[in-house]
Amino acid sequence: MIPRDSDSAGSRPKDALRAWFLGPRAENAELLEHLVVEALRDHVFWRRNYHPEDGFTIREMDKRREGYEESVAVLTQELMGLLAELKRDVPFFSGRYKGHMIAEQTIASQIGYFATMLYNPNNIAAEISPVTTRLEMEVAGDLARMIGYDSSKSWGHLTSGGTIANFEALWLARSVRYLPVAAARVAGELGLDLQVRTADGRALPVAELPLWDLLNIPNEASLDLWELLWQARPATEVRRALANHSLAAIGYQEYSRRLALDYGDPLPAAVVLVASTAHYSWEKIVRALGIGSNQLVHVPVDTHFRMSPDALWQQISQLARHRQPILACISVCGTTEESAVDRLDHVLEIRRRAERELGVTFHVHSDACYGGYAAALTRGSDGRRRAAAEIQAAAGTNWPDADWVSSIVALQGVDSVSIDPHKMGYVPYSAGAILVRDGRARHLVATDPPYLTPPDTPEPEIERFLGRYILEGSKAGAAAAAVWLSHKVLPLNERGYGYLIERTVAGARRLHEALRDGLAEFRVVLLPLPDINIVCYVTCHHSLKSLESLNAFNERVYAHMSMARSNGAAEYIISRTRLHSPMYDGAIDPILAELGVCSVDEWKGSGVGLVVLRSTVMDPFMADPAPDHVAGYLAAVSRACTAALQ
Amino acid sequence: MIPRDSDSAGSRPKDALRAWFLGPRAENAELLEHLVVEALRDHVFWRRNYHPEDGFTIREMDKRREGYEESVAVLTQELMGLLAELKRDVPFFSGRYKGHMIAEQTIASQIGYFATMLYNPNNIAAEISPVTTRLEMEVAGDLARMIGYDSSKSWGHLTSGGTIANFEALWLARSVRYLPVAAARVAGELGLDLQVRTADGRALPVAELPLWDLLNIPNEASLDLWELLWQARPATEVRRALANHSLAAIGYQEYSRRLALDYGDPLPAAVVLVASTAHYSWEKIVRALGIGSNQLVHVPVDTHFRMSPDALWQQISQLARHRQPILACISVCGTTEESAVDRLDHVLEIRRRAERELGVTFHVHSDACYGGYAAALTRGSDGRRRAAAEIQAAAGTNWPDADWVSSIVALQGVDSVSIDPHKMGYVPYSAGAILVRDGRARHLVATDPPYLTPPDTPEPEIERFLGRYILEGSKAGAAAAAVWLSHKVLPLNERGYGYLIERTVAGARRLHEALRDGLAEFRVVLLPLPDINIVCYVTCHHSLKSLESLNAFNERVYAHMSMARSNGAAEYIISRTRLHSPMYDGAIDPILAELGVCSVDEWKGSGVGLVVLRSTVMDPFMADPAPDHVAGYLAAVSRACTAALQ
Repeated sequence: MIPRDSDSAGSRPKDALRAWFLGPRAENAELLEHLVVEALRDHVFWRRNYHPEDGFTIREMDKRREGYEESVAVLTQELMGLLAELKRDVPFFSGRYKGHMIAEQTIASQIGYFATMLYNPNNIAAEISPVTTRLEMEVAGDLARMIGYDSSKSWGHLTSGGTIANFEALWLARSVRYLPVAAARVAGELGLDLQVRTADGRALPVAELPLWDLLNIPNEASLDLWELLWQARPATEVRRALANHSLAAIGYQEYSRRLALDYGDPLPAAVVLVASTAHYSWEKIVRALGIGSNQLVHVPVDTHFRMSPDALWQQISQLARHRQPILACISVCGTTEESAVDRLDHVLEIRRRAERELGVTFHVHSDACYGGYAAALTRGSDGRRRAAAEIQAAAGTNWPDADWVSSIVALQGVDSVSIDPHKMGYVPYSAGAILVRDGRARHLVATDPPYLTPPDTPEPEIERFLGRYILEGSKAGAAAAAVWLSHKVLPLNERGYGYLIERTVAGARRLHEALRDGLAEFRVVLLPLPDINIVCYVTCHHSLKSLESLNAFNERVYAHMSMARSNGAAEYIISRTRLHSPMYDGAIDPILAELGVCSVDEWKGSGVGLVVLRSTVMDPFMADPAPDHVAGYLAAVSRACTAALQ
Repeated sequence: MIPRDSDSAGSRPKDALRAWFLGPRAENAELLEHLVVEALRDHVFWRRNYHPEDGFTIREMDKRREGYEESVAVLTQELMGLLAELKRDVPFFSGRYKGHMIAEQTIASQIGYFATMLYNPNNIAAEISPVTTRLEMEVAGDLARMIGYDSSKSWGHLTSGGTIANFEALWLARSVRYLPVAAARVAGELGLDLQVRTADGRALPVAELPLWDLLNIPNEASLDLWELLWQARPATEVRRALANHSLAAIGYQEYSRRLALDYGDPLPAAVVLVASTAHYSWEKIVRALGIGSNQLVHVPVDTHFRMSPDALWQQISQLARHRQPILACISVCGTTEESAVDRLDHVLEIRRRAERELGVTFHVHSDACYGGYAAALTRGSDGRRRAAAEIQAAAGTNWPDADWVSSIVALQGVDSVSIDPHKMGYVPYSAGAILVRDGRARHLVATDPPYLTPPDTPEPEIERFLGRYILEGSKAGAAAAAVWLSHKVLPLNERGYGYLIERTVAGARRLHEALRDGLAEFRVVLLPLPDINIVCYVTCHHSLKSLESLNAFNERVYAHMSMARSNGAAEYIISRTRLHSPMYDGAIDPILAELGVCSVDEWKGSGVGLVVLRSTVMDPFMADPAPDHVAGYLAAVSRACTAALQ
């Protein structure tokens, strides 16, 4: 919207970094206050200048009445109370916070949110958010281009968070995957000769395909079929026929009944393959969608906590042998516990092999809620891809390697991606995002409100009515403006988010290296170097001889370094997790071996998992020599260990 | 948190009203700016005082570097661009906006949101939102008490909006309604003798009940059964058994297969009854949940757009005859198009009759997303209920009548209620809320993250981990603080929200009355007096002789009074909707008769519905004599009609 030299933003990211945030000591307070007051006054003058002939509703004498004054007094008093209470909140802004995946937010997003909140647009429809609906579409375009989607074909939008984004991805996936089953019935009913491309590349009449083949149509072919359907007959006819046959209309119970009736063998319920490190919300999602959590099949991870391609292939082959369809495969880009980045390039290669050799295909989704923004590292300021060597040279480290870059570049080949701006986009809650490579999928889940049905409603108006295509209804336009403004100041390339995230990786690696040396009498067993910026480790002492005592010890260390459990006395703040069987089977073996307190079988049998201390390094200043928070962190862990031993 | 005289807040609501909002001319700008700067500085000093020994990360000389200055310049420039763009946004604050259900927000919620956003707590878990998770629970308690739930037994939380709240309600309902089927299998497998209370009041062994009876167990009895299960055997055993039999685990496809196998007749899929005026998102919800939109059964409404109790009874009797189970009945408190308030007391009476006479029962949910806050009118400042006569006397009108109050009081008897603070709570997006009368239901949808599984995790910590029980994950603690602060300043009774909403009703009635007189040569056919504050009407002219021309005329009037279609030139801003068949069958008859351009059958056959102009009066100053926005509105509609006729 503002003509400006595309080279200017963040051309000196090292210096710009210090302008991006309010700062651990609120060093940029003057700047933020200036912008906040400016934005507020600008809004105030807008109100004043809107039909000034209307006169005043609240007059100066009204402000002198007792009821008015009392209300202001109550507001001020309660606000002061709230501000006082908030001092018990967690200091995410500080270099001393190294816990969950949360840090401070960019000034751009804070001011973007605040300024827009005064207008309070609702991005459910452009009619009540003419500006911010456009900003939301621009933001979706930014993210799509960053990961390498063709933004003229893809589609995306913001959600209230990663769970909803992931939910929508699977909801869209189900609609696309099951469309051929409905289309076969519609074709039969309306006497249509519709051809469809199968997983092994043949073009066949959809009405004659066996159920197994219908459930293994590639996504793109399914969406082509969708278009053919609407071209074959008038819209009202197609709509009526789909309402008799689509899963969305008839529901799962009727769907199952008909499969049994029409095909004799309804096949077992389709599964969803997930990396065993996948977020626990995937379980919520398959339950809510009616898929069932027993259909969630965990694919083992390797010792770097990345989905094992061999295990994935074995799983697919076995499912194919049992004629069990696969709805989707969920790969992770930045696991919530370890920031591991799946070899997505290998996952896609395996899908190609499955199509070729088994006639099996499925939707591939990347849960990049945490790691997605790291794709900015693979983009130069002119938008071109950067190779690993180039990124390494600029960063002055041996990270990332070419495999990592291949994994990230592979995002451009998956069917859908979820990315949370409110995680590594450093914007305030709530802002998740879902991107779909083939945007036609949105039409399969569209629901029309009563006021959008006139047949002459112009296409752009329909497209700008987001509520039609998404799960949520009302949504804050302010969130879109926050992300938009942040992307303007920190571009999605080496000069903006790329640099920011590279700094956090440098900090995480510095911490990892420092911990490796141990802490006086305490040994530190580390998980491997992270793919992004989460450092996990177990603290041990020679006196601890069992899994139980080791877990209890690490829980006590955690308690010393947790805001709540230390009653705010924690010097540095960390988080902790538990590595459970069977999710971490295989992956945990080297760690248990190094710990030496229990066998893999004992760990499996215990049912309690291994307690692991965890620090998310979203702080971009962690790699700086001063203030030296690595030294401070180590000293704090050391003291916590000493205290925990007593 | 602050000890204060409960009588002080809003004791003179008439005067306090003018302190609650920034104001149409930003009359309270000084107050808001003062509080914003205060909150920002307070936060800044928190950062400064947090471990000052850490020194500075951003030094004054850093701010003089070119890269820093450039970044600040980009931020400032882009923000100015955004502020300029936002001038094209919709002036929701003005008395001239009478469109969708959106108005300006309370100052309390604006400042509460902004102040807390600087801390950016995440209410997914108290560990990263120690203050705001508590505020969210307090807010849920406020709303529960307002509608008459026993807040020690109920449970609730905020959501990103009404659709998610409604989704969760149906998700919880399904879990509770289908539990007895799973429990019967678990009882059989583990050899448990579990008694359950049936809809007609008998206590019978669950394992021996026929399928029809299992699907007609009252909610409370189902939750008692849940408790019995966990008491009967060790937790691990019960967990394992439920994982083999609950719908959440096995999914719909396997569930259907087993019903057919175990019971011979699986029964038709359960339906969801909705008032035919229900929001279009219910269709999204049943599709996503896997229930299927064909299972959504619309219950006709009467000429006041309230669900017809007779039609409801007929529907239930017919379903019972066909042995089709009912999952839930969705009643509406404040329809989105007309603000109609269902006779919920009658709906509940019909459920009692169905239990008694048919042995049929179901979950009753009230979609009070829009109207829920109106329950504040039925509360005195001491919390007691106010009768219709008392409310009328205080307001000086003949509204509301005793039936309205009975409908609202009935909220205390439904199984779940959704209420959006970001609608008539006058807080910024995004804030919806779901309340469940029997809070035990939350345990049926709980999903554990890996770090919350140690068996010794204290109960309060589990309860404060909201992510465990809800669909969403990360969520803005700032939204909770915004609602909380607003409830403190505007209590949920006659002195706060009750007074505010009463004023909007007065404004809506003034507008309704004024429109009744027509607009010079144009006749206005009105929908009946609204139950709350949405005024709907059709403008007509004697030259318009067909439904088609009447619709086109009203669409043109709308275009003149729409921000987007008038290119910002609209004098007053309204919205419009379409009343379609079969949803409005019956209800529309008197309106069509008064219009006299087409018969009911012509309207049904047209397929395009009737275009209706619609004004949501959330403006509390509409009833005021000056500025006289009723007169201004009428003049604007009149001019729009004249222009539309040409």
